[in-house]
Amino acid sequence: MENRMRPFRALISLEEAKRITMENLPEITETESIAILDAGGRRLAEDVKAQADVPPYSRSAVDGYAVRAKDTYGAGRYSPVKLKVIESVHAGEVPEKTVKKGEAIQIATGAMIPDGADAVVMVENTEIRGESVLVFKPSYPGSDVSGKGEDIKTGEVVLKAGERLSPAKVGVISSLGITEIKVFGRPRIAVIPTGDEVTAPGEELEKGKIYDINTYTLSSIARELGADVRTYPITPDRKEDIRTAIESALPADIILLSGGSSVGERDVIVDVLAEMGEVLFHGIQLKPGKPTVCGRITGEHGGKRKVTLVFGMPGYPTSCLTNAYVLVAPLIRKLTGDCNPLRVEKKRMSQRIVSTLGRHQIFTVRVEEDAAHPAFKESGAITSMANADGYIQIPANVDLVEKGEMVDVTFF
Amino acid sequence: MENRMRPFRALISLEEAKRITMENLPEITETESIAILDAGGRRLAEDVKAQADVPPYSRSAVDGYAVRAKDTYGAGRYSPVKLKVIESVHAGEVPEKTVKKGEAIQIATGAMIPDGADAVVMVENTEIRGESVLVFKPSYPGSDVSGKGEDIKTGEVVLKAGERLSPAKVGVISSLGITEIKVFGRPRIAVIPTGDEVTAPGEELEKGKIYDINTYTLSSIARELGADVRTYPITPDRKEDIRTAIESALPADIILLSGGSSVGERDVIVDVLAEMGEVLFHGIQLKPGKPTVCGRITGEHGGKRKVTLVFGMPGYPTSCLTNAYVLVAPLIRKLTGDCNPLRVEKKRMSQRIVSTLGRHQIFTVRVEEDAAHPAFKESGAITSMANADGYIQIPANVDLVEKGEMVDVTFF
Repeated sequence: MENRMRPFRALISLEEAKRITMENLPEITETESIAILDAGGRRLAEDVKAQADVPPYSRSAVDGYAVRAKDTYGAGRYSPVKLKVIESVHAGEVPEKTVKKGEAIQIATGAMIPDGADAVVMVENTEIRGESVLVFKPSYPGSDVSGKGEDIKTGEVVLKAGERLSPAKVGVISSLGITEIKVFGRPRIAVIPTGDEVTAPGEELEKGKIYDINTYTLSSIARELGADVRTYPITPDRKEDIRTAIESALPADIILLSGGSSVGERDVIVDVLAEMGEVLFHGIQLKPGKPTVCGRITGEHGGKRKVTLVFGMPGYPTSCLTNAYVLVAPLIRKLTGDCNPLRVEKKRMSQRIVSTLGRHQIFTVRVEEDAAHPAFKESGAITSMANADGYIQIPANVDLVEKGEMVDVTFF
Repeated sequence: MENRMRPFRALISLEEAKRITMENLPEITETESIAILDAGGRRLAEDVKAQADVPPYSRSAVDGYAVRAKDTYGAGRYSPVKLKVIESVHAGEVPEKTVKKGEAIQIATGAMIPDGADAVVMVENTEIRGESVLVFKPSYPGSDVSGKGEDIKTGEVVLKAGERLSPAKVGVISSLGITEIKVFGRPRIAVIPTGDEVTAPGEELEKGKIYDINTYTLSSIARELGADVRTYPITPDRKEDIRTAIESALPADIILLSGGSSVGERDVIVDVLAEMGEVLFHGIQLKPGKPTVCGRITGEHGGKRKVTLVFGMPGYPTSCLTNAYVLVAPLIRKLTGDCNPLRVEKKRMSQRIVSTLGRHQIFTVRVEEDAAHPAFKESGAITSMANADGYIQIPANVDLVEKGEMVDVTFF
């Protein structure tokens, strides 16, 4: 009888696994042009330069009266200056007249400063008196005026290639009149379900089989992070099938093999990775998630060298889920330029938890106000996922969390 | 001359504005059926019940040997029990034989427990010896066996209507073999650019006009939060035009009028809201963002009563942006069931900031390691958005943040 159950080789620490995967992460070089309304969350692939001054003309910063500052110098609460109002300019209009000595033009916020005027008096410091306006406060040249090009000058680099486009930065691009922008492609994540016992939801469940879960959790996590996710058909645990599936998923940036719960399945993946490229590690001092395998394949795509990271994820749903958050999510965030980490909050552990020394351990928890309750049952349990709001991590050198102790909960 | 510049009426506090908008927020009642691969981030509109037991059969939790527990009771490191291996079962296979006294079946993680066996011995506690296996550790009935239905029983409600589908919960649904699920519709956000001075990017900029920014920041924020966003053409600041635009955007859940930087424009919006529905507030003790207007319109849609919240946002881009984060984003999150707040981190203020007593003030900041630098120039400045990573808030009763003081930075 063949014994397919080879034990693990040297396990590496979680920190080591994170370092290795980050170092081997491919860079995205593909670019595409997209409409700025679709550009939120994408990474700029080119510098954005101003084609014109912003603002394109000197404009009023307030509602009020455009004046010659020196006409107002003596003004005060009990000694207002009286100016003749010769025109009224709304935003978007071009003033027709020039402000001369003793004159003012009523002006709206954002409207163009008329010729002759060099300041604006806020409406709060004035009072209408027939065809004139009383000014109760002196202004100085330039007061409440946004000068032409004061904000951005023509030719200035406003945003740099590589920046991630927040809504604010999308707005900055639109302020320059630009409608399309070149961005880097989304990270391409391929999810390949493996395992002879796995059946796609919607199909009939034969005896001895279970429904595929990991494809759906992995795809949902990657999509939430802005990746371009492709899911592949369920692949049997045979070397040639796994190899063909990986080849069909190239040139993805990251391939996630979602099955592989038994030692035999892991060994198949390790063998295929060794043949196609290089095994980076095989087994992590992590619970759950010990069986995670990682390798890299270097190929060619469009005439360029292209590295693909391949993960053999643990087969158990909870293990696969927490491993995806701990190991894979930071890689996708790196590729999208997203420095926004997951939400982490301090909660009080409602129950004593015993961990394993020498093994970084992850427990799913359910959060209720200030308390974190263990949601973890066993690696195979689906309900530990249904009830979990997030997870806590217990480092390898800690074996116990007392009831009432504060823990950091990372939210899903 | 008409004086369009009416002053503000009573300003309300930011807390009051938040309370009023939250209380008037419509509930989403529309539902749709979607594929579970697309369901991440959506809110369940129905309870999810298990149609079958999970696991659907008793299965092995480890790689090892399925045995009759009582056969192993005497086993020890120096007194192994020898059992005859009669079969090998991989995951997805159905065992053919029954385990009888003195027998074992080699079994992979997740594989079906054969008839006759009531426990699994981990491979680590065994040694192959020809056609037999030596067992070095006793097991008890049920050890390393996940019983049929142990996780979820047929008919059990696994997820409840109203829950937001995290990747973990999407996985739970797939474990039940379900491929489509009923969810509530996405929040419908309409963005209507207003203002006679505003020009759509891509068009030629006439004298006295500026490019539209707020439509792009508002749409990007709402889309990032999972809303179904529609943008409308630029609408002039006239009552009849604004009214027609609002009517065309119904039955959105929230309508954002993105212009309105001057008192006159705000008054037009207030008048239209008073005619079509009810003005909830007009002016907030907030800087920037004082001119924000909010109202509600109650109409009918598909035979049902339908409330729409309408915001007249401040016209200045930075004011509009920070107001959207502070006032509108929490409403969209409420509608999507997203309790994940924005990332907030403590940073050290690199410079003294003077605020205004009696006014809740928001400053954009640029973050560099542990330091927060002011990115704020003036409300109209685009560069204060280009360089900003987030914002800090200074409450109405604080007028000064000293250099070196710790502040909470909310990241964009």
